[in-house]
Amino acid sequence: MQTVNSFIRPLLTDLYQLTMAYGYWKADKHQEPAVFDLHFRKNPFAGEFTVFAGLEAVLHFLSDFRFSEEDIDYLKESSFFGEKADPAFFSWLSELDCSEVKLYAMKEGTLVFPQEPLLRVEGPLGITQLLETTLLNLVNYPSLMATNAARFRLAAGKEKLLLEFGLRRAQGPDGGVSASRYSYIGGFNATSNVLAGKLFKIPVKGTTAHSFISSFSSLSDLKNRSIVNPQENEVPFVELVQDIHKKMGFSTHEGELASFIAYAQSFPHNFVALVDTYDTLGSGIPNFISVATALTQVGYSPVGIRLDSGDLAYLSKKCRKMFTEARSSLPAELKPFPRILIVASNDINEATLVSLNQQGHEIDAFGIGTHLVTCQAQPALGCVYKLVELNGKPRLKLSQEIAKVTIPGKKEIYRLSGMEGYPLVDLMTQVKEPMIEVGQKILCRDPFKANKRVNVIPNKICRLHQCYWDGKKHPSLPNIHEVRDYVLEQLDTFRPDHLRQLNPTPYKVAVDDNLFQFFQDLWLKEAPIMEIS
Amino acid sequence: MQTVNSFIRPLLTDLYQLTMAYGYWKADKHQEPAVFDLHFRKNPFAGEFTVFAGLEAVLHFLSDFRFSEEDIDYLKESSFFGEKADPAFFSWLSELDCSEVKLYAMKEGTLVFPQEPLLRVEGPLGITQLLETTLLNLVNYPSLMATNAARFRLAAGKEKLLLEFGLRRAQGPDGGVSASRYSYIGGFNATSNVLAGKLFKIPVKGTTAHSFISSFSSLSDLKNRSIVNPQENEVPFVELVQDIHKKMGFSTHEGELASFIAYAQSFPHNFVALVDTYDTLGSGIPNFISVATALTQVGYSPVGIRLDSGDLAYLSKKCRKMFTEARSSLPAELKPFPRILIVASNDINEATLVSLNQQGHEIDAFGIGTHLVTCQAQPALGCVYKLVELNGKPRLKLSQEIAKVTIPGKKEIYRLSGMEGYPLVDLMTQVKEPMIEVGQKILCRDPFKANKRVNVIPNKICRLHQCYWDGKKHPSLPNIHEVRDYVLEQLDTFRPDHLRQLNPTPYKVAVDDNLFQFFQDLWLKEAPIMEIS
Repeated sequence: MQTVNSFIRPLLTDLYQLTMAYGYWKADKHQEPAVFDLHFRKNPFAGEFTVFAGLEAVLHFLSDFRFSEEDIDYLKESSFFGEKADPAFFSWLSELDCSEVKLYAMKEGTLVFPQEPLLRVEGPLGITQLLETTLLNLVNYPSLMATNAARFRLAAGKEKLLLEFGLRRAQGPDGGVSASRYSYIGGFNATSNVLAGKLFKIPVKGTTAHSFISSFSSLSDLKNRSIVNPQENEVPFVELVQDIHKKMGFSTHEGELASFIAYAQSFPHNFVALVDTYDTLGSGIPNFISVATALTQVGYSPVGIRLDSGDLAYLSKKCRKMFTEARSSLPAELKPFPRILIVASNDINEATLVSLNQQGHEIDAFGIGTHLVTCQAQPALGCVYKLVELNGKPRLKLSQEIAKVTIPGKKEIYRLSGMEGYPLVDLMTQVKEPMIEVGQKILCRDPFKANKRVNVIPNKICRLHQCYWDGKKHPSLPNIHEVRDYVLEQLDTFRPDHLRQLNPTPYKVAVDDNLFQFFQDLWLKEAPIMEIS
Repeated sequence: MQTVNSFIRPLLTDLYQLTMAYGYWKADKHQEPAVFDLHFRKNPFAGEFTVFAGLEAVLHFLSDFRFSEEDIDYLKESSFFGEKADPAFFSWLSELDCSEVKLYAMKEGTLVFPQEPLLRVEGPLGITQLLETTLLNLVNYPSLMATNAARFRLAAGKEKLLLEFGLRRAQGPDGGVSASRYSYIGGFNATSNVLAGKLFKIPVKGTTAHSFISSFSSLSDLKNRSIVNPQENEVPFVELVQDIHKKMGFSTHEGELASFIAYAQSFPHNFVALVDTYDTLGSGIPNFISVATALTQVGYSPVGIRLDSGDLAYLSKKCRKMFTEARSSLPAELKPFPRILIVASNDINEATLVSLNQQGHEIDAFGIGTHLVTCQAQPALGCVYKLVELNGKPRLKLSQEIAKVTIPGKKEIYRLSGMEGYPLVDLMTQVKEPMIEVGQKILCRDPFKANKRVNVIPNKICRLHQCYWDGKKHPSLPNIHEVRDYVLEQLDTFRPDHLRQLNPTPYKVAVDDNLFQFFQDLWLKEAPIMEIS
């Protein structure tokens, strides 16, 4: 089955890429060797790190890049190129592929920082220009999403289960499928999205919604009164539940009790009850206790409850207490049910997790939807794709905003770690420079501020770019679980102050002295002196 | 070609829909006749209206609904239903389609309000439950997007061109394609997204990016020195531009001038220049004036400029003034170029448009990306899908939050307009009630507040729901241009205070007296009396 969105095609682009390609082609510049960098200027979510993702989709796109005959016909018939457009352009376009393109990239899942090229694309100007919009689309949201998920993971702590529940609120079908994929990569445990589970082989979780609960009115709705026990014998169940319910002195919503019984009959191995339809503490929890106790007597192990409204910290603590009390007040002939998993959902965001931690809570698993998948706190990452070299000469994108100026030329990038094991600085050098070495003292300079300099003697050097495409795909991509492990491993090895939610410390991104001089000289040469009068 | 995302399939759902379906099936409830309402509780963007969209995709989904053999295998092999899951369930699932489903819906593009069912889905409980997540996904983002676009249209005014430029920042490929489709429906004029243009037959626009400009270093980069004039003769062009440039006394960036010439050679009919690469007023505008004047001499009509940074109000006014001055200072032998279109882009949001209007500006067209397509001001619409009737009996979803309580039963919905032509109130009644009539005095009640009542004598009544599916698709859907016209027409006929950006007046959504009593009685009956001690 197709694991990739059918919309990922060369035509998934801004028209200006095609009009520019025509302009290059007419000016006979389309074959000039070009280098583009894809990078962002600011970390999302007021944070100081970003998780790079989307590489696998990028490689798929490069590999399949080819305009269909139908695409070419559409372009010809549209008025984009004028009535007198040169037919030879369309011939060129129809034969275009990525066989002359080289892609250097960060490993998928790498923690990345502003100004660093996540991708470096080399090749003839025409084709490399045509890749821009699609590459940006394929990197921006996945990286944003993986970053958001990693932030939720940091806020929830390592031990909690994090479940992505956002499909219904996601920005389109693919928004939903991508959200599931990249929140898993960012450190979630599972998704509710079945298609994503199938496509990417990631765990899928889910139990019931309120409609299931409210579809039952009373115990007489239950045509089946028994349950099949682990020994495969049919044993009475409704009566057992009723008996326990009476012994415990519970008075609750009967339809809700019926729905719990029906669900337990269908999922005796995996009984999780949604307890807030009528009254969490007054009805949902007592009903759960009755069914959970009955399941235990029959030989099953009930799993958990889900809270979907109200004060989650308070309710979770209260539920835990009620479970403990119920266990101790059970009549002697009844076996107590095991520890119950408490799942919480309901519009949870990163700040809610932080607040829940402060209040203390008894939640084991969080179901997170809207805030996670739409990245509500900042729904777009601002990656850009800039020409940094043409015909072997550096190119500079100027701007009155310093952060929008692009560091020119073809660059190597290294992650330098110190004695204590954590990364200290990422260093960019010109590709033509020799490799830097462990133990060597390296002057690392802020690319924009001449007076910000630091000497580093790295204990470990990691070269961050690898070539992933040179006309064909390199075969060795890690699988999604390995990418996720890589993200979690980095969340452990980076200094916590770079990762914390409140006022994180910026991680250093530097250039070596040669690149600094080269950059500043070019900038001085290119920048206009403004005239004011 | 496939106009629909390949991910829109029955498996694009939350697992709990499938586990609930199994629960219904095991309890022999899956064939019980059910009614679900899809509605939202709060208008987005702090506004008081929403544009309903996504219906065409919904109908496509219903029409194609069928689990593939591969889907069924995946479900069987996964542990979702336990090892002992009943194989007959999978047989049922593999034959399931929407032939027993009925869908009533608002017309696509209708202005809608909280609590109103956008969709009413009728059919057996099993299949109607299984539709939930996908229907929500297919309505939530399209409606949010169309609403956002309509708000930009209201802010920009009717006459301005609005161009959607958001593909690169959208949430995934489909997020981009949907954004283009639904921003057109919401009142935009065109998109930059070529695939969306092809799929939906909507206008596509685009010219150049900064990389095109910076790919030229000097006039010697131009191998071709001529242009083909409208009479199809090759005439010298670079020299003509240089000559004009000299006569005007301009001193500018030569690479930028070269890029403008190259673009004019490729697009003489549609010359639009991006003027902010080096220095908008010092280089971009003078270079544009030279090339535009030369094009005019040759017989073409230059089109416009694009501003992509800086103070857009100030720059647009200054540019307009420079064009006027250039026209009057042209040597007598030169024809003046026509009125120039000023396009502005750069992180524009609704508030920017309002502020530009206040400052006064000379912008004719806005290119809008990130804020539009990600709906940055509120990236999700909170549509929900609630069981309102089962086996002919009303169902109520309770909540401690009043706005989260669902109005039970199968409902008709009417839009009542008054003497002055604009809509006054939307009224819900029980389907079994007789149709309401023009001229009749109708008591309209707030569904939640007993003391809020208003008598209305409607001058015009529009029944908002139509049946769009009853086992097969009804054929008569309007095309995308008609849907857009319908949206724009409503933006004209609704009272402006409902639509304004600041403190809009809520539009009334009411129930008739019978539905009010029915609802309140049920609520009193179902709501638990809480115990506190």
